[in-house]
Amino acid sequence: MEKITSVSNNLVKETAKLKQKKYRDESGKFLLEGFKSIHEAFLYGVEIDYVFVNEYKLEEYNFLKEKLISVNDAVLKKISTTETPPDAVGVGVQKLCKIPDVKNRQKVLLLENIKDAGNLGTILRTSAALGVELVVLFGDCVDLYNPKVVRSAAGCLWKLPVVNLKKTDELTKYFDNYTKIATLPRTDNMLKTFETKVPFLVMFGSEANGLSDELIKFSNKSVKIEMKDNVESLNLSVSCAIVLYKLLI
Amino acid sequence: MEKITSVSNNLVKETAKLKQKKYRDESGKFLLEGFKSIHEAFLYGVEIDYVFVNEYKLEEYNFLKEKLISVNDAVLKKISTTETPPDAVGVGVQKLCKIPDVKNRQKVLLLENIKDAGNLGTILRTSAALGVELVVLFGDCVDLYNPKVVRSAAGCLWKLPVVNLKKTDELTKYFDNYTKIATLPRTDNMLKTFETKVPFLVMFGSEANGLSDELIKFSNKSVKIEMKDNVESLNLSVSCAIVLYKLLI
Repeated sequence: MEKITSVSNNLVKETAKLKQKKYRDESGKFLLEGFKSIHEAFLYGVEIDYVFVNEYKLEEYNFLKEKLISVNDAVLKKISTTETPPDAVGVGVQKLCKIPDVKNRQKVLLLENIKDAGNLGTILRTSAALGVELVVLFGDCVDLYNPKVVRSAAGCLWKLPVVNLKKTDELTKYFDNYTKIATLPRTDNMLKTFETKVPFLVMFGSEANGLSDELIKFSNKSVKIEMKDNVESLNLSVSCAIVLYKLLI
Repeated sequence: MEKITSVSNNLVKETAKLKQKKYRDESGKFLLEGFKSIHEAFLYGVEIDYVFVNEYKLEEYNFLKEKLISVNDAVLKKISTTETPPDAVGVGVQKLCKIPDVKNRQKVLLLENIKDAGNLGTILRTSAALGVELVVLFGDCVDLYNPKVVRSAAGCLWKLPVVNLKKTDELTKYFDNYTKIATLPRTDNMLKTFETKVPFLVMFGSEANGLSDELIKFSNKSVKIEMKDNVESLNLSVSCAIVLYKLLI
């Protein structure tokens, strides 16, 4: 097994670059930090190039066989994005789904222009847990392979297909016969008594601006979460969870 | 109006210390970062000592009158805890509720040993929005006045009473006649069909370990959120939101 102890090693430096979106885009690779992310990626068939593992924790990562590289704390600190580095950091190959692969997915979540990596990861975890069948990242969302998204998703990044779409035309093409639900801060339709049939596309806007006029126009149904008057809004991943639970369970 | 432009100013240095729990505990003060936190604190009668405001944004903070101190970006950077400093950072006086103040609160949320500041803030925001009447921080939880809690709570920190309790004896004393609901990863009682009456105390354990045996023993009802088999758990603030929505709305 290869052993690296220098933070100036070329492979270490190349790997650390994957913290930046630019290098993730160029290489099509991304970082997997910690046992859970690495293990679930492995189980779900994500292609893994190599994994740097703390020299004292090699046994736990036996399943990775010849992909293991033994390293010290300094190397892990250099390549990880958390304050306390994890026991292992791996490099995986990005895999984006294409829409033709995901036709006939009936329970679809759309997120428009969402920017917070923690929110996206948490929403993917919730979506996998509750049975969303496809997630559409619409417009200009945070990068799916941002290390914080991967971490917050807690191993759920590969449990359901995620596609990127940019134009309303594409939405019309694929989801025209779906019930298109806009989640809004103001509408008369309360979630408690909301009913819908499959197939549906439920849409959430960005943390700062909510859904765009374009997507509100595209929708044919709307819903809001009941809230006390003295509270302006809920966190986006919380709103998603409440609405998805109601629609899916 | 006082004007400070030096990061070595004594008041600036004292204020920056409030990033640390030790100094918050000693002084009974805490940081308020950004317009929303400051404005809501003001509206809800939180005692505010003074507020450092960006020299170009003073007008927006007029309501604070003689509490305003005009500062530059460097000072704001020094005293704030975010990468991009906000337009204003204030110092508030901590206020902890005592149980006698909150008798007869019927819809109570208990959090045991929770450690993640973002989770606590988000849960307080959700609790205020959905109508929780009291939050109990049980055991060894993250500090309520941690800057990240204040930030994630998005102005909801003072909209409902929060008490700290350490011992099960105290829970028995105050909540003995309540329905005491343990949220668990394994139990036969599914949330979808779960019904309960007020008064209730619904309990969530820590991110890492769930509820302690002590609190499970203390409970007289249990519930779990339905989930796909291939997902281990939900984020804590997401779990809380789903359960609270079901119990409260």
